[in-house]
Amino acid sequence: MEKANSAKEAARLIEDGMVIGIGSGSTVEIFLNELGKRIKEEELEIWGVPSSYQSHMLAVENGITVTDLIQFEELDLCVDGADQVDENLNCIKGKGGALLREKIVAQAAEEVIIIVDSRKIVDVLDERVPVEVFPFAYGNAVKEIKKLGGEAVLRESDRKLGACITDNGNFILDVDFGRIEDPEGLECRINCIAGVFENGIFPRRLIDRVIVGTKDGVRVLRN
Amino acid sequence: MEKANSAKEAARLIEDGMVIGIGSGSTVEIFLNELGKRIKEEELEIWGVPSSYQSHMLAVENGITVTDLIQFEELDLCVDGADQVDENLNCIKGKGGALLREKIVAQAAEEVIIIVDSRKIVDVLDERVPVEVFPFAYGNAVKEIKKLGGEAVLRESDRKLGACITDNGNFILDVDFGRIEDPEGLECRINCIAGVFENGIFPRRLIDRVIVGTKDGVRVLRN
Amino acid sequence: MEKANSAKEAARLIEDGMVIGIGSGSTVEIFLNELGKRIKEEELEIWGVPSSYQSHMLAVENGITVTDLIQFEELDLCVDGADQVDENLNCIKGKGGALLREKIVAQAAEEVIIIVDSRKIVDVLDERVPVEVFPFAYGNAVKEIKKLGGEAVLRESDRKLGACITDNGNFILDVDFGRIEDPEGLECRINCIAGVFENGIFPRRLIDRVIVGTKDGVRVLRN
Amino acid sequence: MEKANSAKEAARLIEDGMVIGIGSGSTVEIFLNELGKRIKEEELEIWGVPSSYQSHMLAVENGITVTDLIQFEELDLCVDGADQVDENLNCIKGKGGALLREKIVAQAAEEVIIIVDSRKIVDVLDERVPVEVFPFAYGNAVKEIKKLGGEAVLRESDRKLGACITDNGNFILDVDFGRIEDPEGLECRINCIAGVFENGIFPRRLIDRVIVGTKDGVRVLRN
Repeated sequence: MEKANSAKEAARLIEDGMVIGIGSGSTVEIFLNELGKRIKEEELEIWGVPSSYQSHMLAVENGITVTDLIQFEELDLCVDGADQVDENLNCIKGKGGALLREKIVAQAAEEVIIIVDSRKIVDVLDERVPVEVFPFAYGNAVKEIKKLGGEAVLRESDRKLGACITDNGNFILDVDFGRIEDPEGLECRINCIAGVFENGIFPRRLIDRVIVGTKDGVRVLRN
Repeated sequence: MEKANSAKEAARLIEDGMVIGIGSGSTVEIFLNELGKRIKEEELEIWGVPSSYQSHMLAVENGITVTDLIQFEELDLCVDGADQVDENLNCIKGKGGALLREKIVAQAAEEVIIIVDSRKIVDVLDERVPVEVFPFAYGNAVKEIKKLGGEAVLRESDRKLGACITDNGNFILDVDFGRIEDPEGLECRINCIAGVFENGIFPRRLIDRVIVGTKDGVRVLRN
Repeated sequence: MEKANSAKEAARLIEDGMVIGIGSGSTVEIFLNELGKRIKEEELEIWGVPSSYQSHMLAVENGITVTDLIQFEELDLCVDGADQVDENLNCIKGKGGALLREKIVAQAAEEVIIIVDSRKIVDVLDERVPVEVFPFAYGNAVKEIKKLGGEAVLRESDRKLGACITDNGNFILDVDFGRIEDPEGLECRINCIAGVFENGIFPRRLIDRVIVGTKDGVRVLRN
Repeated sequence: MEKANSAKEAARLIEDGMVIGIGSGSTVEIFLNELGKRIKEEELEIWGVPSSYQSHMLAVENGITVTDLIQFEELDLCVDGADQVDENLNCIKGKGGALLREKIVAQAAEEVIIIVDSRKIVDVLDERVPVEVFPFAYGNAVKEIKKLGGEAVLRESDRKLGACITDNGNFILDVDFGRIEDPEGLECRINCIAGVFENGIFPRRLIDRVIVGTKDGVRVLRN
């Protein structure tokens, strides 16, 4: 319910002709279905760069013209969910394993809107941080992450043997850093490990607005 | 129990200095643990080319020196499980999603041994055939497979959003072909679809021996 | 000159609203530039699925809306070049290293048009056949190709160390099979090697029309 | 000549039973050939983790047992070349396109030795910096690099159409940053761009020793 309120509000913000970055996850799915209704009813032309195979397929089903960052270097808007958001608008994302492309479309967008239900809002980030790792570097990445204070666990699949593989062919480490007091600093330190491709900390400089779904509407946090 | 009997029998066949292809799956895991005991007790030196990240890690844990097909063009032996085996020794493999590298190590080996419990033996293959597909070709591959009489379903993950991705970065289609009367012909027809990288039919020409675990021992089928 | 005549003729065949498969190479580049002029002058809306990063970028520059086989399962037309074409319309392609996606877009298209200059037409195919190989299978693939009568050489890069890598992350073997009397049979036998992803023989069943550029126009061969 | 003096000196430092990281390039090739002679003559057992397909194949030819960072989390030593080295031992690497795995094996090693001829030593780094970029992020990465003061050019192949692809399936941007006054800071800022996987600045904290070949011997710089 809260999720849906947030997603619907975001769908209202999309304007005809826009090129949008499309995040991934269940809240984004509601957003795409809502946007799809508007596309059909209002005959909108919307272009989108999806961040996963999942949102690629959902975008097509909902009448969005899927495109990419070669065709459009800049995106008007990016809409995505989050696993946790702190009071300064720093987020953790990546439970769904799509964090690499999610961060790229966020970075490429002029404005980034995060849609969440109210349970995702916390004082201090303390969720496990997903880290996308080049399999060649696996053992060493675990060791380097430990030096930063994180306990890394390789995410396993249960529809195939062994590791869960991302859309980009890599491993995901789910890393427990405890309470994250300096998300922006930690984000950069993790990315500077050789063999780490991206991590799920989305620092506040990337985020413009958070639309928090409530029982009877939304609350908007701005950066 | 049956599984274990089969796996233990295979572990007995490995000789000091051998270079082996290592399949994937739960029966192979038992095989590797048994072989690991022998390596420790008898101080064997065994080299192995694993077919998945899972068996790579298990091989390392069990004291096998992991190597590859650049170092060794030919393997002495390959040990793998199967999802289904018919009376002519044709197999279906790939439930664990490792079929591409499994078929490569099987092809590279002088002798291929399949280890299964007795419930895997059937008159005619009729399990769903996993097909590893290049994501770029997804829509078209589904269509071409239909022309061969197969109903293809994209395998989804449940540890990440959307498709289950193989160790090699590709999709898996699970394809229902009904009763497969001509496994060898079908294997080749599927592989000749552009964008199909490999499929889970392992025709009898690849298989030398099937060790079937029984309650109190093993039964061996030879090609 | 001949190339250009062929490419221009193909550009004339494209109709407003079409979804086309886009091959790769220097003749396709001329085709895209010609089509781009028509798109601009006649305000056409053309959608295209490119077969390489090269043709992706050229398509964007020329005003084609780049799309994929998830958005469109079927393509109206595919236009591509070739390295060699025999009198039955069997082709060899892949000098440019884009054969995997080229064959996929050809297969997905209702009609395939090959554009070449007259020097490409031969009685019997005898060019080296590029084969896209999964690096894991390299040593074994060379051995299996030898069993089919082919001498395989790994294509090296000269802008980076070692192997030339395809857009899809794989090796290319350039294989000398001598005179290829049975292209359709050989194509399938190569693809049935485990670890071979695709090869550059495009058998006549995939090809509908060959537009051969001549000094003063074109000559069309139909299947 | 200078190159060879440097490479030979490094080969002398390798001890029986060591697990080494193996860089890439022409100086590393001389090193491997020298080490290969010692392995043969002195019957050494050396394990190595190569940083490219090129050095993988050279390692095998020279009798090194190729292994990986799953088998060995830590390497005793890493030997690699460089395109440029400043007086503080900061390096630029990656002309050969192998920088991603080169940085991983350097990070995983207890000691890193760089082997170069004397022309590579400069006061201030000013070579173009190779940056390995996820193709999905290409347009955006160029834009973000510009914000850091760099002019990025996509490296093209000349053995295939379009972009030169790394062993890992990615693009290389060659980036002109002019004189690089703060290599360590720049290295991290580049890596914090979403879609950048690694870059060719190897800051001094990664480097332990530089062996500079001279006409009649070597000169050693220590960190």
